[in-house]
Amino acid sequence: MTKILSVNAGSSSLKFQLLEMPAQTVITKGLVERIGFNDGVFNIKFEDQKIEKVLPIKDHSVAVHLLLEALLDLKIVKNYDEISGVGHRVVHGGEKFDRSVVITDEVLAEIDALSELAPLHNPAHVLGIKAFMKELPHAVPVAVFDTAFHQTMAEDAYLYPVKYDWYKKYGVRKYGFHGTSHQYVAKQCAKLMNKPLEETKMITIHLGNGGSLTAIKGGHSVDTSMGFTPLAGIMMGTRSGDIDPAVLPFVMAKENLTVDQAVNALNKESGLYGVSGESSDMRDILKLVAQKDERAMTAFNLYVKRICDYIGAYYIYLGGVDALVFTAGIGENSTPVRKAIVDRLGVLGIQLDDEANQVMGEEQLISTPDSQIKVFAIPTNEELMIAEDTYAFVK
Amino acid sequence: MTKILSVNAGSSSLKFQLLEMPAQTVITKGLVERIGFNDGVFNIKFEDQKIEKVLPIKDHSVAVHLLLEALLDLKIVKNYDEISGVGHRVVHGGEKFDRSVVITDEVLAEIDALSELAPLHNPAHVLGIKAFMKELPHAVPVAVFDTAFHQTMAEDAYLYPVKYDWYKKYGVRKYGFHGTSHQYVAKQCAKLMNKPLEETKMITIHLGNGGSLTAIKGGHSVDTSMGFTPLAGIMMGTRSGDIDPAVLPFVMAKENLTVDQAVNALNKESGLYGVSGESSDMRDILKLVAQKDERAMTAFNLYVKRICDYIGAYYIYLGGVDALVFTAGIGENSTPVRKAIVDRLGVLGIQLDDEANQVMGEEQLISTPDSQIKVFAIPTNEELMIAEDTYAFVK
Repeated sequence: MTKILSVNAGSSSLKFQLLEMPAQTVITKGLVERIGFNDGVFNIKFEDQKIEKVLPIKDHSVAVHLLLEALLDLKIVKNYDEISGVGHRVVHGGEKFDRSVVITDEVLAEIDALSELAPLHNPAHVLGIKAFMKELPHAVPVAVFDTAFHQTMAEDAYLYPVKYDWYKKYGVRKYGFHGTSHQYVAKQCAKLMNKPLEETKMITIHLGNGGSLTAIKGGHSVDTSMGFTPLAGIMMGTRSGDIDPAVLPFVMAKENLTVDQAVNALNKESGLYGVSGESSDMRDILKLVAQKDERAMTAFNLYVKRICDYIGAYYIYLGGVDALVFTAGIGENSTPVRKAIVDRLGVLGIQLDDEANQVMGEEQLISTPDSQIKVFAIPTNEELMIAEDTYAFVK
Repeated sequence: MTKILSVNAGSSSLKFQLLEMPAQTVITKGLVERIGFNDGVFNIKFEDQKIEKVLPIKDHSVAVHLLLEALLDLKIVKNYDEISGVGHRVVHGGEKFDRSVVITDEVLAEIDALSELAPLHNPAHVLGIKAFMKELPHAVPVAVFDTAFHQTMAEDAYLYPVKYDWYKKYGVRKYGFHGTSHQYVAKQCAKLMNKPLEETKMITIHLGNGGSLTAIKGGHSVDTSMGFTPLAGIMMGTRSGDIDPAVLPFVMAKENLTVDQAVNALNKESGLYGVSGESSDMRDILKLVAQKDERAMTAFNLYVKRICDYIGAYYIYLGGVDALVFTAGIGENSTPVRKAIVDRLGVLGIQLDDEANQVMGEEQLISTPDSQIKVFAIPTNEELMIAEDTYAFVK
């Protein structure tokens, strides 16, 4: 058995899971928050214990150190050499990385250079990677990219109809995100269908606070709804998704905003939150809908409509679909959202099994036996995907 | 018989047709260009004559005067009273106008106030309307709006997932354009299908230098691809259509552009022109494609792909479709574009009749008899729609 750490480093946070591979057992998991603050927070769960400490956490090195010490203290590992690999989630791999790779100095420099395309994420990943490489020099460091899965898209899906120079000079194109999640649930779905992944056509629907759809043919992403950045695509918790770009200068003039402020409003004050005026959380929206709150109903209908638009587009682009897969917070747990979406897809011969659709957080077929397209709810597991990719290099 | 002028006034141009109604005969038509310049150009076609004059045309009043004088000189009318109505194309009717109206002082003020939403168009329309009202005080002035047909869209189609205040305070929503064209070809299509318009579901595909798709249920627009402005939706001659709005600040920083310059690049240097680097004209693109020009092939594929995405979305939203209708310059005349689009729609049971698809500029069914969705090419005629709406008030 091999122990693999699966890590997601943010600018002031560090999420981790220690897994036993290939058994896929989660040994422990936790979260460091408020890195860089005097009141940093360290959380770890192990067996029945939940430990939380508040203390100054100067930087990512201190966070990693804390985490590793806890593994020793709790006797989760006897020594650090037991940890054979560390898999890092990396948001942006650009056009360079179409799969997971062992992190060399060169790879690290590439990830750093891609910070331009993911200024909120890649610099933090670099800090996390460096800290683990220093503390665990014997563990194989692996980068697993959110964008890699989508590098199989064809030109007609990834290019924007803008000046070709913008693509050539600056890399303006659709990259797509959530790749690890879409890839994971696609694999699980093929297993549930008892069909080789290579012979399937699916639309995976990742609905969390962020959200995206992916059209997957034979296990390869052929189109996805997020774009150059995670702002594009469907409506999300606080993000608008697709809108007429000409709205920006109009609103900037009206509200006296800079372009960054306007785009920030599209990222942080739009979506479910912006339309409802109440909450970015689908559970709150659904409560308000039950109370016949008009703005919440509008937000809900817009949310569902825009997802169905993408399902229609991908149905055509794939030339038919074997399965739809719902995943992530809303996709795994929200019976009403799944129902509202599938109810709009009647023309495709899809029928929901209302009883099966009560499922929350489990793998489940939720369409009726005679539905022409199967519908699944499948919990995503990006940490496991990261551990698997890392384990493949460790072996 | 009644004579109606159908007018489209731009900021420096004025396009006109004189029609005999209800016979729908075009008596004469013409174009005034370079209004405001010393080398203005006046064109008129009548029977076998084509007259062109180059002369100073100070303003829209002078242009209207020229046109009316020509009607007398050519003995097209004996006196101005013969012209019973003037129908004006107006690009933006906002949420106020959901149909054509007789222009009163109040209506004129509303059209002027809507200039904020259509700064390039509505002010010019106001000039044109005023000039004709002065010169032809006895003719009924009618405004026919590009946006009116789309006012039947439901909230989930016309709202953007942005701050609700942006809609309430500033009118930020999807308006849609080309309404007169979509409405016209929908009516013609129902006639060709020998079905009451009320019982049809169609997707009309207006492909000119600009372009938009409309989902039409029972003769009413329920969704359309253009948005707050005509920039949104499918790829066009020089317009990008939908892109991730976060591209704007990125490109602004890279190229040191203001937001207006960046949006201008999306409007004027993108689309077929931006991707191919050669031309915004589909005929040129097709020539380059025949020569295996890679960038032109990319542009063509992107163009087709993005249209098919909308067809898929509208197929779902309409819950099935009876007919697709191609119209406008490219839609009426481009055999290869229609073929490339329909070839991607096989999963919907649509089949093109390759021979019928050779048609250019005529009303024609271009799908096979066993195609599950009928496909038509139908020349649009916005001038006639404007004349019809005007005639309805004159009667």
